[in-house]
Amino acid sequence: MTQLKNDTFLRALMRQPTDYTPVWMMRQAGRYLPEYRASRKNAGSFLQLCKNPDFATEVTLQPLDRYPLLDAAILFSDILTVPDAMGLGLYFEEGEGPKFKRTLCEEADIRKLAVPDMASLQYVFDAVTRIRRALNGRVPLIGFSGSPWTLATYMVEGKGGTDFLTIKKMAYARPDLLHRILDITSQAVTAYLNAQIEAGAQAVMIFDSWGGALSHNAYREFSLQYMEKIISGLKRENEGRIIPRIAFTKGGALWLEAQAEIGADALGLDWAVDIGEARKRVGHKVALQGNLDPAILLSTPEAIEREVANILASYGRGNGHVFNLGHGITQWTPPENAACMLKAVRTLSSQYHS
Amino acid sequence: MTQLKNDTFLRALMRQPTDYTPVWMMRQAGRYLPEYRASRKNAGSFLQLCKNPDFATEVTLQPLDRYPLLDAAILFSDILTVPDAMGLGLYFEEGEGPKFKRTLCEEADIRKLAVPDMASLQYVFDAVTRIRRALNGRVPLIGFSGSPWTLATYMVEGKGGTDFLTIKKMAYARPDLLHRILDITSQAVTAYLNAQIEAGAQAVMIFDSWGGALSHNAYREFSLQYMEKIISGLKRENEGRIIPRIAFTKGGALWLEAQAEIGADALGLDWAVDIGEARKRVGHKVALQGNLDPAILLSTPEAIEREVANILASYGRGNGHVFNLGHGITQWTPPENAACMLKAVRTLSSQYHS
Repeated sequence: MTQLKNDTFLRALMRQPTDYTPVWMMRQAGRYLPEYRASRKNAGSFLQLCKNPDFATEVTLQPLDRYPLLDAAILFSDILTVPDAMGLGLYFEEGEGPKFKRTLCEEADIRKLAVPDMASLQYVFDAVTRIRRALNGRVPLIGFSGSPWTLATYMVEGKGGTDFLTIKKMAYARPDLLHRILDITSQAVTAYLNAQIEAGAQAVMIFDSWGGALSHNAYREFSLQYMEKIISGLKRENEGRIIPRIAFTKGGALWLEAQAEIGADALGLDWAVDIGEARKRVGHKVALQGNLDPAILLSTPEAIEREVANILASYGRGNGHVFNLGHGITQWTPPENAACMLKAVRTLSSQYHS
Repeated sequence: MTQLKNDTFLRALMRQPTDYTPVWMMRQAGRYLPEYRASRKNAGSFLQLCKNPDFATEVTLQPLDRYPLLDAAILFSDILTVPDAMGLGLYFEEGEGPKFKRTLCEEADIRKLAVPDMASLQYVFDAVTRIRRALNGRVPLIGFSGSPWTLATYMVEGKGGTDFLTIKKMAYARPDLLHRILDITSQAVTAYLNAQIEAGAQAVMIFDSWGGALSHNAYREFSLQYMEKIISGLKRENEGRIIPRIAFTKGGALWLEAQAEIGADALGLDWAVDIGEARKRVGHKVALQGNLDPAILLSTPEAIEREVANILASYGRGNGHVFNLGHGITQWTPPENAACMLKAVRTLSSQYHS
C-alpha cells in the first residue's frame, strides 16, 4: 500500500507526539454537504450509497476534497450493516432513523441467531479497499461498527432512540436471552472489524450510540464487557503498523474510568464532559477524542473559535488529543462553519505541542 | 393545617434520622393506574385533569389510596403551566409530548415576554390547597415546576425531546436573548413555587428534564445558575416548618458537585450513576433522591427486589436517602410491580437506619 503522508491522527491515538491536534468530524460525509446530497440523489437512497463501493468511495472522499485540514477519513457506511447481514431487514423511511423489518422478540428466533457469513458484507470490505486506493495515502482511513448493545437495541426494539423498554425488560427478566444476542453480535462485529482491517482500515471505532441509556451496572454487564471482548479479538497490526481502537459511548462520560480499562487506545467523548477533567480521570491510559457540541457549528465564527479554544485549552499541553465533535455533524451545518472549526483547531492547537 | 402523621420524607430530605428509607415515585399518579385512566376519560384530557382542582385532587390521591407505603404525594400538574400562562398555548396531541402553539423565535417576542400574573395559575394553587385538605396529614405534598432551561426548550423549540438545535443555536449565537428568556422564566417560576408553598406545598422540586442535553459549561450558564436563582428566592419556611427543595437534572449526574452548591436540600438522580458514588461526591451537602431505572418495574419481582437491594446497599447506612425511580414510572408498569418495589424498599431499608 502507498506510504501514509499524514499520520498525525494515528500518532495522536497512540499518544505519540504530533505538531498539532489532529481533527476529523463524525458524519463528515453527510447531508450538510451539497455534493453529498447530489451523490445520494444519484444513488437513489442512503442504503444504496452504503452498498455500492463506488458511491461509498465517492462520498467518503468528498469532505477531504473540500476540507484539506481533515486528518482522517471514515468509511461511509451504516452502523447496522451487521444485523442487516443477519437477516433482520434494515430499511430507512424518509426523515426517520434506521429500522428493522424483523425484530428479535421470540426465544426461538434468538436461539437461531448466528454470526453471518462475512461474504454478505463484502460490499463494505470492497469499499474500504477502494477508498484506500482513492485516498492514496493522504490521511488514514477509519473503519467502524456499532457496539453489540447498540446493535441489539435496534435488533430487539426494531428502531433506535426509543425508551428502550423492550430490551431493558429482557435485560432484567431474561438476561440469558440478551446475553446470547450480545455474544453472537460481538463475534460478528469482531470478524467484521477484522475484515475491515484486512481490507485496509487503519484505525477502528466502535460506536455505542445508546449505551448511555443504561444504568451504571447494566452498562458494564450489557455494553462495556462486549466492547472489551471485541477489542481483545481484533488484529493489532496490519501493513506493519498498529491499528488503534477507539470506543465511544454517547452519554457515557460518567463511566470513563471503566471504559479506559477495556483495551481501547482512545475514548470518544460527547460534549457533556470537560475534556480536561476527563483527561485527569483516565490518566495516561488512553487518548481522548472530542468533544465540541455540533450545535455550535450552527452559530457564528466567533462562538466556534471561542469554543474550540476552550476545548484545546482544557485538554492542555501534550499528546493524546484528537479533536472531533461530540456527535455527528448535523445536516443544518453551513459548510463554511465546519471550515471555520477546522481552521481554528489547526491554528490554535500548535501552541499545545512542542 | 392538620398535623403531619408521616414526616419521614421531609426528614430524609433534611438528612435527619428516619426509621426507614422513605419512597415515592415520579409520575406516581399516571397512566399505569386503571383508576387514573378512568379519571382522565371522565375529565376529557390530560390538560383538563390538570386545570380542574377536583380532578387534580382525585388523581393525586389515587396512588396513595392504592399504595399505603408511599411517603409523599406530588401535586398532579404539568411542568409547562408557567409558559402556558405566558400565553404560548400549551396543547397535547394523542400519543405525543406537550407542544406550544407559539414559539419564541423573534427578538421582538422575546423582548415582550413577561412574568405572568399568578392569578392565571390559580387553578394550580387551588389544587394544592384541596389536595392538602384531602390528604389530611397522611403524607407531605410536593409542589413542583420545570426548570427555566427545560421550560425554555419547549418555549423556543415548541416541543421537547428534540436535538435542541434551535435553542442551542440561540445559546451560542445570541446568548443575550436566551438569558432574557431564562431570567423572566426564573422570576415566574420563583413566584409560582412560592405561591404553591403558600397554598400548602410542603416540599418543592425543580425538574430539569433537558439539562442533560447541554455541554458542561453551557449547563452551568443556561440551566444551573437559574435553578440557583430560583432556590435563593424561595420561602424557606411555612406553617413553622422548613420547605425542602429538590433539584433534578435528568442526565446530569456528571455535574453533581456543582448541583450540590446551589442551595438545594436534595438532588434527584437518574439511574446512570451509582448512588453510593454520588453520595461520596456530594459529601454531606445534600440528600439524594433516586434512582431505580423505571424499566426494571416491567420485569420480575425477583429482579425488582434485587435492584432495590443494590441501591439501598450502595447508599449504605445513615440519613439522607429518599428512594425513587430515576425518571417517571412508565405507563406499561404492572401496578403490582410498583407495590413490589415499595414493599422491598420498606422491608430492606430499616437495616440501614438505627
